[in-house]
Amino acid sequence: PDWTPQVRDGILQLEREFKFKNFKLAWAFHNKVAELAEAEGHHPALLLEWGKLTVTWWSHSIKGLHKNDFICAAKTDALLTV
Amino acid sequence: PDWTPQVRDGILQLEREFKFKNFKLAWAFHNKVAELAEAEGHHPALLLEWGKLTVTWWSHSIKGLHKNDFICAAKTDALLTV
Repeated sequence: PDWTPQVRDGILQLEREFKFKNFKLAWAFHNKVAELAEAEGHHPALLLEWGKLTVTWWSHSIKGLHKNDFICAAKTDALLTV
Repeated sequence: PDWTPQVRDGILQLEREFKFKNFKLAWAFHNKVAELAEAEGHHPALLLEWGKLTVTWWSHSIKGLHKNDFICAAKTDALLTV
């Protein structure tokens, strides 16, 4: 599934689930997204489970979605092919 | 807060929130817990956010808590002082 809008505690967020064959592959992708977050100075919620990483972007300051969240979502997708 | 029992989708889980001063420290702890998971062959849900890691242990096979989850929770705590 692609990026999906989610509302949690009244806050609009952009979420996508990435599936992998095992924990290590999901963990490796997790680390790439965490590096991106540090580079951007913008931090998503990253939920790592066996074979799955769920990435959720939103802007805490405005309690919702900013253009930057869509850019970060696109940059997250780009990491899949790195 | 210490480890707290949670019920999600009818499954009893053991959850604890660990707070840190920034993203990097939370991420570093995340990686230690991920290493533990691989070593144990038992994988929790790891939710990394800015300054916070939420660790949730449960046994998928029995859809609940096994003695091993309590052991893994204790091993997670021990990683804080490594």
